[in-house]
Amino acid sequence: MADQTYSYTQLYTFAKDVFAVMGCQEQEAEEAAKVLLAADLRGVDSHGIARLSGYFRLWQAGRVNAKPKMSIIHESPSTAVIDADAALGLVAAPYAMKVAMGKARLAGTGWVSVQNSNHFGIAGIHAMMALEEDMIGIAMTNASPLVAPTFSTERLLGTNPIAVAIPTGNQPAFVADMATTTAANGKLEILQRKNLPAPEGWIQDKDGHISTNQHEVKNGGALLPLGGTREQGSHKGYALGSIVDIFSAVLSGANYGPWVPPFVSFLPLADDMPGKGIGHFFGAMRIDAFRPAADFKANMDQWIARFRAAKTVEGQEQVLIPGDPERLMVQERMQRGIPLIDAVVKDIQELSGQLNVTL
Amino acid sequence: MADQTYSYTQLYTFAKDVFAVMGCQEQEAEEAAKVLLAADLRGVDSHGIARLSGYFRLWQAGRVNAKPKMSIIHESPSTAVIDADAALGLVAAPYAMKVAMGKARLAGTGWVSVQNSNHFGIAGIHAMMALEEDMIGIAMTNASPLVAPTFSTERLLGTNPIAVAIPTGNQPAFVADMATTTAANGKLEILQRKNLPAPEGWIQDKDGHISTNQHEVKNGGALLPLGGTREQGSHKGYALGSIVDIFSAVLSGANYGPWVPPFVSFLPLADDMPGKGIGHFFGAMRIDAFRPAADFKANMDQWIARFRAAKTVEGQEQVLIPGDPERLMVQERMQRGIPLIDAVVKDIQELSGQLNVTL
Repeated sequence: MADQTYSYTQLYTFAKDVFAVMGCQEQEAEEAAKVLLAADLRGVDSHGIARLSGYFRLWQAGRVNAKPKMSIIHESPSTAVIDADAALGLVAAPYAMKVAMGKARLAGTGWVSVQNSNHFGIAGIHAMMALEEDMIGIAMTNASPLVAPTFSTERLLGTNPIAVAIPTGNQPAFVADMATTTAANGKLEILQRKNLPAPEGWIQDKDGHISTNQHEVKNGGALLPLGGTREQGSHKGYALGSIVDIFSAVLSGANYGPWVPPFVSFLPLADDMPGKGIGHFFGAMRIDAFRPAADFKANMDQWIARFRAAKTVEGQEQVLIPGDPERLMVQERMQRGIPLIDAVVKDIQELSGQLNVTL
Repeated sequence: MADQTYSYTQLYTFAKDVFAVMGCQEQEAEEAAKVLLAADLRGVDSHGIARLSGYFRLWQAGRVNAKPKMSIIHESPSTAVIDADAALGLVAAPYAMKVAMGKARLAGTGWVSVQNSNHFGIAGIHAMMALEEDMIGIAMTNASPLVAPTFSTERLLGTNPIAVAIPTGNQPAFVADMATTTAANGKLEILQRKNLPAPEGWIQDKDGHISTNQHEVKNGGALLPLGGTREQGSHKGYALGSIVDIFSAVLSGANYGPWVPPFVSFLPLADDMPGKGIGHFFGAMRIDAFRPAADFKANMDQWIARFRAAKTVEGQEQVLIPGDPERLMVQERMQRGIPLIDAVVKDIQELSGQLNVTL
């Protein structure tokens, strides 16, 4: 069956209305829907409307609090720890990023670690909030354990993404947003749907052998850290994923490593959890706490122009700047709509019927 | 010819004396020698005593200032930009890290970008300074362009390392220190000396084809970003290396991308350099600006114990924690001495004769 296409407004309104049914206040329902749909617009289909029913089931299971009282539980001039009170991560993340930016306004930089939260959508959209105030934005989060450390057969880390957004002058902003694995889980899901094998270096089987079976993770296998194998630097991807886990959860008092609560509501929580919920980490650095923003932006424009003009390997049109593919995708999908695969259409139609919310 | 072994004290004293001949003040000569030798102790042979004659030649060429007046040229409560006045990076980096830690003492965190500097040895040793005060330490630097962005045949980035040191309780500290390439240049130098081919994914030839010729970089080839190929996530390594370049040099006003001054003194500087010298970036985050240090350390100990106890792939004894191999190497080399290959022995003996400094 061919993909069905929906407009941004259709899906945004539906998501907002579903969050309202859960009991979110209007402003938080709008914010959550905006963050969720940013994934669909930017082409990260695994983190957008496809997850809406998952968030709903977490709320049904009592693991998401639609009326959270988020609060700062510890702070210094440039830092804060936030207890998100089991909020949707989609709501907790913008709240925390605003706190980081407020700190940066006064102290030059702001750094916020969050405990007791849930899945926050794509990292990039939170980092990008800082751009509006000429700040560098940083966002990271831990996630359900799917990734094996180098030399291990156990899944101890999430795909733990890092996003960094950097202001520019005339050029579009530099926006890196990457899982610390060779490939994000969403990339694997695409291969599963198309019934195509996974490239070597993405996953291993339950015994730690490299596998190309796109369903291997369901058989006790694991995603691999960026690098794939030790010889190709997987110990670096493992270290990066670990740093994200520690900044997000050990600094905040959330759960880390294999204790991170799973996204899917039907999997049980560990009974010896060392912290609360999942953890995030955000940073904001005011450019003019380092040098005049105009000078920085002029240099960034030159940096980007030089890299974009780099000689290419035969068959490649242009060297890309982090953020280029996602920006083009936003333009296309705002214009032509967001294509959803059959399974996702079925999923949101069922949700629509169940909740009596118009799609 | 078999390796020759020197004691730490022999090499430390020799390096200190050479820096003194260059005109460094006693305390700075000691600091530079300590930083330089930390590389040999930790097993990063490419960044230690093997580079001493290179630093000396940069001083002869007028590119290193042995009597720098380093100063803060811009600051906020949690940030500073330092003009290193063409100092040895070995001296500029500890100075900047101390500024970052001073900021962190008052504001919770400190972030310092450095312009007008030179090669700073290994990143890890600078990040580790923060451990003494229960802070997380971060260090990064840009470097001579040897790395091609994904899809490009041009060398526009250095191996741009990131180091993160995290305090612990009873466990040894977590210390990640990694080039943002598949393999650091030093790893390639080892293969060159042993006349062994490079694994696929480490380098490409001048046209951008994957190569296993360990000498390819001298033929117009390039090192590859962590990931190696696009399918294996090289765009992530490229983004990480870019972030290091921007934080180190665009934030500080140093040279970036292809304009970074080469380490070897015989290569000319670009004539259109946009900044001053090379750039570094340092961070210090006080643990108790987030939560009580004792709680954090108890969780870090649990984190490390859990990962160390993870089930291993057959044939592997244990899952390693970032910093483990280097820590064991320090113990071994402090006890048994530092083995140097013939070429390095010859190099430092020549320097000894030339400067009349006893080795």
